[in-house]
Amino acid sequence: MKIGMIGYAFMGAAHSHAWRTAGRFFDLPATPEMAVICGRSADKVAAAAAKFGWAESATDWRAVVDRPDIDVIDICTPGDSHAEIAIAALEAGKHVLCEKPLANSVEEAARMAEAAKSSSARSMVMFNYRRVPALALARQLIADGRIGTVHQVRAQYLQDWLVDPDFPLTWRLDAASAGSGALGDLGAHSIDAAQFLTGQRISAVGGVLETFVDSRPRLDGSGRGPVTVDDAALFTARFDGGAIGVFEATRFATGRKNAMRIEVSGSLGTLSYDQESMNELRFYDGTEDARTAGFRRILVTEATHPYMDAWWPPGHIIGYEHTFIHQVRDFVTGVVDGTELSPSFEEGLQVQRVLAAVQQGVSLRSV
Amino acid sequence: MKIGMIGYAFMGAAHSHAWRTAGRFFDLPATPEMAVICGRSADKVAAAAAKFGWAESATDWRAVVDRPDIDVIDICTPGDSHAEIAIAALEAGKHVLCEKPLANSVEEAARMAEAAKSSSARSMVMFNYRRVPALALARQLIADGRIGTVHQVRAQYLQDWLVDPDFPLTWRLDAASAGSGALGDLGAHSIDAAQFLTGQRISAVGGVLETFVDSRPRLDGSGRGPVTVDDAALFTARFDGGAIGVFEATRFATGRKNAMRIEVSGSLGTLSYDQESMNELRFYDGTEDARTAGFRRILVTEATHPYMDAWWPPGHIIGYEHTFIHQVRDFVTGVVDGTELSPSFEEGLQVQRVLAAVQQGVSLRSV
Amino acid sequence: MKIGMIGYAFMGAAHSHAWRTAGRFFDLPATPEMAVICGRSADKVAAAAAKFGWAESATDWRAVVDRPDIDVIDICTPGDSHAEIAIAALEAGKHVLCEKPLANSVEEAARMAEAAKSSSARSMVMFNYRRVPALALARQLIADGRIGTVHQVRAQYLQDWLVDPDFPLTWRLDAASAGSGALGDLGAHSIDAAQFLTGQRISAVGGVLETFVDSRPRLDGSGRGPVTVDDAALFTARFDGGAIGVFEATRFATGRKNAMRIEVSGSLGTLSYDQESMNELRFYDGTEDARTAGFRRILVTEATHPYMDAWWPPGHIIGYEHTFIHQVRDFVTGVVDGTELSPSFEEGLQVQRVLAAVQQGVSLRSV
Amino acid sequence: MKIGMIGYAFMGAAHSHAWRTAGRFFDLPATPEMAVICGRSADKVAAAAAKFGWAESATDWRAVVDRPDIDVIDICTPGDSHAEIAIAALEAGKHVLCEKPLANSVEEAARMAEAAKSSSARSMVMFNYRRVPALALARQLIADGRIGTVHQVRAQYLQDWLVDPDFPLTWRLDAASAGSGALGDLGAHSIDAAQFLTGQRISAVGGVLETFVDSRPRLDGSGRGPVTVDDAALFTARFDGGAIGVFEATRFATGRKNAMRIEVSGSLGTLSYDQESMNELRFYDGTEDARTAGFRRILVTEATHPYMDAWWPPGHIIGYEHTFIHQVRDFVTGVVDGTELSPSFEEGLQVQRVLAAVQQGVSLRSV
Repeated sequence: MKIGMIGYAFMGAAHSHAWRTAGRFFDLPATPEMAVICGRSADKVAAAAAKFGWAESATDWRAVVDRPDIDVIDICTPGDSHAEIAIAALEAGKHVLCEKPLANSVEEAARMAEAAKSSSARSMVMFNYRRVPALALARQLIADGRIGTVHQVRAQYLQDWLVDPDFPLTWRLDAASAGSGALGDLGAHSIDAAQFLTGQRISAVGGVLETFVDSRPRLDGSGRGPVTVDDAALFTARFDGGAIGVFEATRFATGRKNAMRIEVSGSLGTLSYDQESMNELRFYDGTEDARTAGFRRILVTEATHPYMDAWWPPGHIIGYEHTFIHQVRDFVTGVVDGTELSPSFEEGLQVQRVLAAVQQGVSLRSV
Repeated sequence: MKIGMIGYAFMGAAHSHAWRTAGRFFDLPATPEMAVICGRSADKVAAAAAKFGWAESATDWRAVVDRPDIDVIDICTPGDSHAEIAIAALEAGKHVLCEKPLANSVEEAARMAEAAKSSSARSMVMFNYRRVPALALARQLIADGRIGTVHQVRAQYLQDWLVDPDFPLTWRLDAASAGSGALGDLGAHSIDAAQFLTGQRISAVGGVLETFVDSRPRLDGSGRGPVTVDDAALFTARFDGGAIGVFEATRFATGRKNAMRIEVSGSLGTLSYDQESMNELRFYDGTEDARTAGFRRILVTEATHPYMDAWWPPGHIIGYEHTFIHQVRDFVTGVVDGTELSPSFEEGLQVQRVLAAVQQGVSLRSV
Repeated sequence: MKIGMIGYAFMGAAHSHAWRTAGRFFDLPATPEMAVICGRSADKVAAAAAKFGWAESATDWRAVVDRPDIDVIDICTPGDSHAEIAIAALEAGKHVLCEKPLANSVEEAARMAEAAKSSSARSMVMFNYRRVPALALARQLIADGRIGTVHQVRAQYLQDWLVDPDFPLTWRLDAASAGSGALGDLGAHSIDAAQFLTGQRISAVGGVLETFVDSRPRLDGSGRGPVTVDDAALFTARFDGGAIGVFEATRFATGRKNAMRIEVSGSLGTLSYDQESMNELRFYDGTEDARTAGFRRILVTEATHPYMDAWWPPGHIIGYEHTFIHQVRDFVTGVVDGTELSPSFEEGLQVQRVLAAVQQGVSLRSV
Repeated sequence: MKIGMIGYAFMGAAHSHAWRTAGRFFDLPATPEMAVICGRSADKVAAAAAKFGWAESATDWRAVVDRPDIDVIDICTPGDSHAEIAIAALEAGKHVLCEKPLANSVEEAARMAEAAKSSSARSMVMFNYRRVPALALARQLIADGRIGTVHQVRAQYLQDWLVDPDFPLTWRLDAASAGSGALGDLGAHSIDAAQFLTGQRISAVGGVLETFVDSRPRLDGSGRGPVTVDDAALFTARFDGGAIGVFEATRFATGRKNAMRIEVSGSLGTLSYDQESMNELRFYDGTEDARTAGFRRILVTEATHPYMDAWWPPGHIIGYEHTFIHQVRDFVTGVVDGTELSPSFEEGLQVQRVLAAVQQGVSLRSV
């Protein structure tokens, strides 16, 4: 299975490691070949190819998409190019693995979902946190009824890298490139995780978006430019299955580095997770005798835990990049075996609709 | 200083212990005398008097308020009687300590605040969590500028005692007695704590209220009756100083017993608190070198911590009832010394306004 | 039941609070009357009597012991006077509650145990940590077989108040008054807890005692005097039931304020406790499926937990002084009902034997 | 740099991943080539070569050592073959990376250290936990004086995989193959970490070794055979710089999966670590004001933390296998640049001496 990857920054390193490593630990039905990596700067992408272990580098993504030997297009670029690349790839019959959020607008995402439906090729959105063993286990426990009827979701995705008002104006702070700020970058993960875990879809939302620092130093040194995305997004939500939820996505939570937290409470129990301790899942089983009931810290490192039979003995933890390796495992397996690939572009589109509804906002009531 | 206490249930035990104990550990400018406890059932209130150590018992609160020897009326009844008792007491020149929330409606609370302003006597609302040493310390650190400009508040008050659908229909589930459900009982604490800690007032709110179980067994055995209050209330908020916040109050968070949690993030740091570990305060000092920065677990048991010079050596923790002892200390001291009593009825009224705005609700946007 | 208390410092405040409060929350078969408090300084003990609520004060403990109206002698003095007071009280037919460790030597403790056996009066050692609800629950779970055969104990009692080399030379640092240092003050608690929890007795010990700072400023300002006790004591142990254990008692664990920790591992599970979070017990149930097994944080605040039906709703924690209240409850109940009082002086003697064996030391093997 | 690896089980997978990955994230002065993997079973080792990505497989380690093109021998076999292979490799001028513990006896380890000294080639013991960023940071902080004079070490290495009495009799339970049990497998890590962190050497030891289950099912189904190693080893220690310590290594700590914990207390602070949360370091800075002092949870994921500039953004954690990648980085760098390789075989020998002294044992004192 020959892979062409478009984009080579932070996500490029993570994806490359995943393509290189998945087959060394998992039994895959096909061997990924790291055929070509593509980026705009010839020099930089050539260096990235050497560093990450790709056979070739290229600067024209359309040429990569057109190569008949390429089976898979892996899209790691900023959100504004997802739709164009993904649709071209799908039309060329290439399987597509696309970074999240699916697009920068509902319109783009809808065209992508349509292309995915029309294509004979397969597609998947890279909500990699679904592949955290602890969250995959949480999904199993909820599906098994271990927490009963889901009543409430509390989700936070807390980072702090924008607290410094002189942090520069990167593409992630520009609405044209990134679509939104903390909302799309972080909140999209929380939304997908909430829907994945509960099996319910968010049906209505409302809250607050805020930009605390509205101008920042331009990268080219030409003074300060406007920040056109949110620094923080807070909202409450209703789900179509009767649950309610509260969400916070922020880049201003000083001291919280990558705290993607989600807690789901049901009639029989609660599950709780924090990405900063990604090998742990907290589980309260409300069917236990109150005398000995308590939140259990499940160290998700047993061979019977999702994905963990490929790794180390119990108690030996894994890290962030394993989520990508697991996603590659599931992608390759699903493509070859013809089984479901999840999250689909249709699911990615639904997340986009939630993001759009949050961005449209509601009027709070004055006190 | 002679005390008359109205009400004798859960809060009666806690208040009695506080009146009995405060002078044994703190140097008070006046000695509280536990003169009379008042309740509707003569037998039960007499038993409570004996058990809790009150000199007399009574069944007519008006007679207690009229007694010339009584200096202080301590109101521990459900919210629907607060206004009537407090206003009568203030008009009779008695100092008043009133349980939270101040009332069941803005209108009642406004009349109480007005009575407080007109009276020569002093008054205070019993938001006892302000007297948790860890939260008092948090307030000091914020006031000292240790976390810089406050950007965000995340507040949760999680309990789970209503998850069982056959939990009976007590007065707390009846809007006429209790005003609201989780919102007024739990959310009021979070609102007061958020405003106390940040020094900012909530100016706008919106979110979701939900009643998951809408009928419950009546206490008298006559079948099920309607639940007329919220089981959970989720809302986002704007503060008048520029901060934003997210709030959750619920009695359906299975496994969370009394998790009054609040985290405040500012430009220089973050403070984090959980009532289930009430002797601890987490503090992230963003001015530290990133190499050694981290959330500190401050064990708030040092003699230099608020209220703690009266208690045990470092590391020897205190419990829930100490918050009441500390409040009595502050109340007695403030009354005798003529210093400010906080939270005032005016502050209680403002919390009531926030509660009312949340209850009026907003329309979420459909996805 | 009339109480005479000898000693009035730190432990005096805690004991007084317990005598004053126990009957307000528990149903006691007799009402403790705080009759007389005794100390060497007439002024100070009179002030203590007023502060703590004792009817009278006295300076001659023998006179107190001889008073025919006194039923109970509560001994809160340093260890060097325990034997003399306790034996006199027991011979006078008074029930005795004695602070730990029972004495400063095996010889004294043996005479006390002998006096206890010969007397018609009842006696009890104040190992108050047995009355922590979490540890009482742990004992129940072990006795119920929930962790199977006990294999290992890991016990630490970590404080840090001697790290400052200029901390003064108090009686606790003088072997003549205190017997030993961290070993007897802190290690005695760990030894008692280990034996209480496991139901096994320590049969052999060996390890290291160390004094890091060997002279300290005298309290009277006359220069520095010698520290004649251990700053830290570390030892391994064998139990008579086949378990093994490791113990550490230290006043030099910088940042650890009152970390009395104990973890007991058995063939079916493990229990773990830390006094700094005294309302929590960790329990790993090894009979659970590995997929969902994990250490549970049991919040020991349920009405079904030991002692907790007298206190607050679930999730509302208690503090250090409650251990004394619970001990008074058990003492009064046991004395009146004629049921077993534990720990007995015999048990206190056995702890003393362990302390003595540790102090005699072993030769480590050179590397 | 051509690598030959001897052994291909658990450690083989980890080492292979490290050789394959180190150069993809770190800038190495030479590129490791995975030339040959060697094991006793031709079929199995060929499969391992394909799975792990080695160019060739072999069954005769002497032939591998003799290959002139091989630069490095990586030894992952059980301890009883370390000495023979390592000495042969060093004599053949190959650089050697050897798994821990260095050998099964002091005599073997001494010969290895001698061979290392005599050889022109370089050598290193695989105490991989030195390469955990949190422990490397801890070492820096201690070396910088941040905790002052080191007084105490408390070290535990807790696992539980032998609690089941029917766990089979693998080579790790056979003294002839493994040398010792929990002591050498787990305790060796604790000993090395304690000496690495403190910069002091253990000079005297004594404690308890215990085998709780003395026979287990043979792997070939022929009934039960004797367990000839310790299940648990507990000991106290003195260090040559004045510190004292307590150590526990056990495979019977039910529920503890890989809890390699170490805490070092000094005159100015304390550092605390648990391998189950290997991205975190706790630091108590005793020079802070007591009002805000507390154990900090340093999330060791900043670019300024050891090894972490090669990995992900702050808050994105790494896993167990990264310790091997870091060790490969340090080994390759040290070999090419001629800088110190640590831990040396001499250091490995010293650990062996401590293990031997613990095994010789001491007589505890009867109570």
